[in-house]
Amino acid sequence: MTIGISELSSYVPPRILSNEELSKQVDTSDEWIQSHTGIRERRISDDGTFASDLAIVAGSEVLKRRGLDPGDVDLVLVATSSPDYNPFPSTASLVQEGLGCKNAGAFDLQAGCSGFVYGLESAKGMVAGGSMKRILVIGSEVLSKITNWKDRNTCVLFGDGAGAALVEDTGPEGHVILDSWLKSKGSDAGALTREAGGTRVPGAPESPDPRKFTISMNGKKVYLFAVDAIVRTIKALCERNGNAPEELDWIVPHQANARIIEAAAARLKLPIEKFFMNLDRFANTSAASIPIALEEMRERSLLSPGQTLLTVGFGAGLSYGGNLIRW
Amino acid sequence: MTIGISELSSYVPPRILSNEELSKQVDTSDEWIQSHTGIRERRISDDGTFASDLAIVAGSEVLKRRGLDPGDVDLVLVATSSPDYNPFPSTASLVQEGLGCKNAGAFDLQAGCSGFVYGLESAKGMVAGGSMKRILVIGSEVLSKITNWKDRNTCVLFGDGAGAALVEDTGPEGHVILDSWLKSKGSDAGALTREAGGTRVPGAPESPDPRKFTISMNGKKVYLFAVDAIVRTIKALCERNGNAPEELDWIVPHQANARIIEAAAARLKLPIEKFFMNLDRFANTSAASIPIALEEMRERSLLSPGQTLLTVGFGAGLSYGGNLIRW
Ligand SMILES: CC(C)(COP(=O)(O)OP(=O)(O)OC[C@H]1O[C@@H](n2cnc3c(N)ncnc32)[C@H](O)[C@@H]1OP(=O)(O)O)[C@@H](O)C(=O)NCCC(=O)NCCS
Ligand SMILES: CC(C)(COP(=O)(O)OP(=O)(O)OC[C@H]1O[C@@H](n2cnc3c(N)ncnc32)[C@H](O)[C@@H]1OP(=O)(O)O)[C@@H](O)C(=O)NCCC(=O)NCCS
Repeated sequence: MTIGISELSSYVPPRILSNEELSKQVDTSDEWIQSHTGIRERRISDDGTFASDLAIVAGSEVLKRRGLDPGDVDLVLVATSSPDYNPFPSTASLVQEGLGCKNAGAFDLQAGCSGFVYGLESAKGMVAGGSMKRILVIGSEVLSKITNWKDRNTCVLFGDGAGAALVEDTGPEGHVILDSWLKSKGSDAGALTREAGGTRVPGAPESPDPRKFTISMNGKKVYLFAVDAIVRTIKALCERNGNAPEELDWIVPHQANARIIEAAAARLKLPIEKFFMNLDRFANTSAASIPIALEEMRERSLLSPGQTLLTVGFGAGLSYGGNLIRW
Repeated sequence: MTIGISELSSYVPPRILSNEELSKQVDTSDEWIQSHTGIRERRISDDGTFASDLAIVAGSEVLKRRGLDPGDVDLVLVATSSPDYNPFPSTASLVQEGLGCKNAGAFDLQAGCSGFVYGLESAKGMVAGGSMKRILVIGSEVLSKITNWKDRNTCVLFGDGAGAALVEDTGPEGHVILDSWLKSKGSDAGALTREAGGTRVPGAPESPDPRKFTISMNGKKVYLFAVDAIVRTIKALCERNGNAPEELDWIVPHQANARIIEAAAARLKLPIEKFFMNLDRFANTSAASIPIALEEMRERSLLSPGQTLLTVGFGAGLSYGGNLIRW
């Protein structure tokens, strides 16, 4: 079996929030945001739109493009850091129902912004294991709903969106997932958290500080971790598979911040052109950023058969890792 | 490769809450609880003890028994419906750090009470996929911390605990995971929820009704679903693998309620003795109940090589499914 991605799609909500607009709500500026992050604008979901809604749009388009009946999907795997409910029912269950995947299982995978990278490998494995044929892997986020819009340190960074991939036996001509490398640095788990809502900071009976329901981040720590995570992942996956990093056609990093990606490229002495970026238009969409990037690359005809791609995820956990893909 | 469970362990907190004690807090009785559920008592974690804490105890014992250095684990997968944080960092990240699994990745899997069954198959797959050798799968719950202790319809049902399994290439002599069957009935996702804490019912700025941070359930709907889920899972896994249900040595169901299990046994015309139960002492520990049951079976020498086991999970999502295991 050669297991890979047979189809892709993405969906972002139509509403654009520009740096300009944002700088009217919080003490920031287009200049600061662009120079420190590379972000120009992000998409924001409507009040009544949730991660499952975005996932259903992206997922149904994948099925349509692949010409697949929803009943032919064996598993709906949703990677998300902003699920509809917390911790149950899973967002994947809602997507399974919304897509009409009546024969599928469903689970949510939580590994912060590395969720899609983890999900791809988990799906590849489950197909390799033999009990399933087709798995819909979806990264979907409505981070705007857990953002502290009064905290300029974080609110400029995030956006909403979803990306979906169908994983199955594609044959050797497919977009094959050759290898994955998945890691965690739990020692720095406190650097990127949503404190309340779990069992450690319960939502009731006393109400915690509302900010605890939003993203809280030690920016500097996450920055340093992220650069290191990109460098390590690329080195490890290349070494394990006999590739030289210079031979990679594309690196598709989690779209957190252009400066993180530039620093990693410099450290690896790789041309920045090898790193695909579209974070200027979508900001950090967590587990959705990599499939949104892949879909845009495909749409823009940047991908051709035989190319070697490397995805790199990093984020809350602190989790990191990547997938080596032969397109 | 023949992938299976090489080692097991479980841990429950020492504090016992009996039906008797519970009936002093809420309008119920030992008689009602035992006759309607089979539960006599459950374990309750201390105020400062969370899912990651229980998982670390169970996980470290697995590594000790297996004689494994924590650095030899490639992935820590935690299935939980009561994570420390929500949605990030993952409980698995905290466990990865707590166990000293410095070379491991980490993610949380959320599929309600079916989490362990899903986790076993995901782990088997990831080993089959070739990028990992050893995966620690842990079901860990502190449901007492999201229980509405004023609602007699639910508070009598749940308990705290953790169970862990190491999944790796065991060779054909090992406890091999032969097949899994994983499903979801998202159309009834609303029957078992924790409404608040996700994005649909945010915890702030207005505080929602505190009950929304606790488990809410349509008992009758879940009951009917559960019986059906057990019957379907056993039939499907047996049919797909050429087993007759009567030939199974053990069925290890999610330990929700003795009456659910008895009704399923009757529907399948199987002797109730085939179904292992220890819910009288632990109640429903969600994603932890199956590994806690397996570990007790092993400790009591109920398992011997060559036996055919079938696990069955069902719960929030509504998710369900099972693993066919040759012990
Ligand atoms: C957040 C981040 C962009 C900050 O950039 P930086 O160059 O490190 O900036 P610093 O932390 O040095 O802060 C410099 C100043 O800018 C200010 N600042 C922060 N955000 C600002 C904003 N949106 N607009 C204007 N000023 C801002 C700070 O308050 C600080 O002011 P001070 O010096 O008066 O205290 C950077 O740390 C980062 O990218 N971290 C990783 C974030 C990330 O990607 N997280 C998700 C990973 S999945
Ligand atoms: C919850 C459950 C045990 C209730 O048992 P039941 O036989 O269906 O009971 P009913 O729903 O018919 O309720 C009968 C009465 O018992 C009462 N009751 C419920 N819990 C009670 C308790 N702990 N003590 C005393 N009375 C109780 C109800 O209020 C109801 O009273 P009413 O008739 O005056 O309204 C059963 O529905 C069940 O097992 N559901 C599945 C739960 C489960 O396992 N969930 C997790 C799956 S992962």
